[in-house]
Amino acid sequence: MITLSLIGIGTGNVDHVTLAAVHALNEAEVILLPRKGEAKSDLIDLRRVLCEQLLNDTASTRIVEFDLPTRDAERQYLNAVDEWHNAIASVWAELMDKHLPGGGRVGMLVWGDPSLYDSSLRIAKRLTDSGRAVEVKVVPGITSLQVLTAEHKIPLNALAEPIQITTGRRLRERGWPEDAATVAVMLDSGGAFTTLPQDDTYIWWGAYLGMDKQCLIKGSLSEVSDEIIQRRAALRETHGWIMDIYLLAKQPLI
Amino acid sequence: MITLSLIGIGTGNVDHVTLAAVHALNEAEVILLPRKGEAKSDLIDLRRVLCEQLLNDTASTRIVEFDLPTRDAERQYLNAVDEWHNAIASVWAELMDKHLPGGGRVGMLVWGDPSLYDSSLRIAKRLTDSGRAVEVKVVPGITSLQVLTAEHKIPLNALAEPIQITTGRRLRERGWPEDAATVAVMLDSGGAFTTLPQDDTYIWWGAYLGMDKQCLIKGSLSEVSDEIIQRRAALRETHGWIMDIYLLAKQPLI
Ligand SMILES: C[S@@+](CC[C@H](N)C(=O)[O-])C[C@H]1O[C@@H](n2cnc3c(N)ncnc32)[C@H](O)[C@@H]1O
Ligand SMILES: C[S@@+](CC[C@H](N)C(=O)[O-])C[C@H]1O[C@@H](n2cnc3c(N)ncnc32)[C@H](O)[C@@H]1O
Repeated sequence: MITLSLIGIGTGNVDHVTLAAVHALNEAEVILLPRKGEAKSDLIDLRRVLCEQLLNDTASTRIVEFDLPTRDAERQYLNAVDEWHNAIASVWAELMDKHLPGGGRVGMLVWGDPSLYDSSLRIAKRLTDSGRAVEVKVVPGITSLQVLTAEHKIPLNALAEPIQITTGRRLRERGWPEDAATVAVMLDSGGAFTTLPQDDTYIWWGAYLGMDKQCLIKGSLSEVSDEIIQRRAALRETHGWIMDIYLLAKQPLI
Repeated sequence: MITLSLIGIGTGNVDHVTLAAVHALNEAEVILLPRKGEAKSDLIDLRRVLCEQLLNDTASTRIVEFDLPTRDAERQYLNAVDEWHNAIASVWAELMDKHLPGGGRVGMLVWGDPSLYDSSLRIAKRLTDSGRAVEVKVVPGITSLQVLTAEHKIPLNALAEPIQITTGRRLRERGWPEDAATVAVMLDSGGAFTTLPQDDTYIWWGAYLGMDKQCLIKGSLSEVSDEIIQRRAALRETHGWIMDIYLLAKQPLI
């Protein structure tokens, strides 16, 4: 029997890790650490540092790095994702067979929280569906959205109002979602907010949240939209990659 | 100068507290602990236990309990809330003047994460707006919604789809929000989901998440709706209070 813990680790700030995550890391016999290609190599470094800082001297945890299969960018999105998840599940299964043939405790570090735009749960389900003796555990972690609101010192919701969490792609395609006073946007390949009416909309933007190079900008879209686009391009140029997220509202949130 | 840390503490499971929260608690000179009336006295007990477990022996943190002013239930909702927040801000200010006349570090324990349906940030803003030398810090915490998804081992979003977070009141008034594949409902005084079409909708429900008395139910609404209503009533009767939250989706999430 394999116990597979999907461990939310926050977004790069070791202090955002929970006590449960620290325990889960130390209890794991094997931690699987995916390499995600050159550009975002900062991120695997961050994960390595996190393991180094959080594993006790007495922990006998082995860290196993592996290469992620690549996704077929040419294929239709959902099909490509589906096959990609199958391929990753096969790699996980191989690694478990190799490193823990008699079963044991495996940990996977999940960026932010495993529930939010992350595929680990769906990949793990492929293992259990295929009849493997795998028990999945989920350790919640601080999301990038929570770091965004904490750093800007704002609530996510307007008083008693609903919140929409959506993707850059969706915001471009559908505009402002009905029935939402605030909208949080993730996975934006860049500037989806420029497609909205710029007047009377506020933005709280953050990149590299929780990390040393964290960058925050806020204001009304009509005033800061260009600044964000330029800053984003410059940061991406400098660091070779960027992750950003933002909250939009029709009124100041606080 | 007062440094006021709003410290997200998760929802009752000490292990869900972050390292940053542990540091913030230990660095505080005074922790303000609101008493919230009889029925929910479990919750102040939980906060006391949390302080006991997480404060180092060397910490010189003083814990100051105080009574929250009560809200005028007769008044119109938003006005009543506004005046209630003013009243609480006055109490906070008095306590700071009394216990830290020369300034210092104050901590407040915030249930879950300070960004999500919580008033601490708005109350703190009243202090800074009134010209007090108060610097606010926010320490993110694991939300009840994350514990819900972690315990049910489900994602919050359907693949690449948006999420709506809303209130029970709103769900009753407006029905299923447009443009959302999954809907998370908080602050439901009971059974708002019964007002939705019961067919082809799934629910993942949880009460007292993170606590010993945690209770989970999931299934299609047509099958588990009554069970949830009955269980909720029974639990509330037994414990004298209840907090619950749920996720709804038009399709299995995983
Ligand atoms: C695949 S999703 C994973 C989200 C993650 N599970 C979480 O809980 O934050 C990646 C997206 O999250 C956001 N994100 C993650 N980490 C971030 C960070 N440190 N700073 C800014 N945005 C971040 C970005 O919108 C990015 O496109
Ligand atoms: C005033 S809001 C505060 C939410 C909190 N800031 C958070 O991050 O979870 C209170 C609502 O949160 C949800 N909630 C909070 N703690 C909970 C728990 N332990 N179990 C289930 N629901 C909870 C319930 O929907 C409740 O009505």
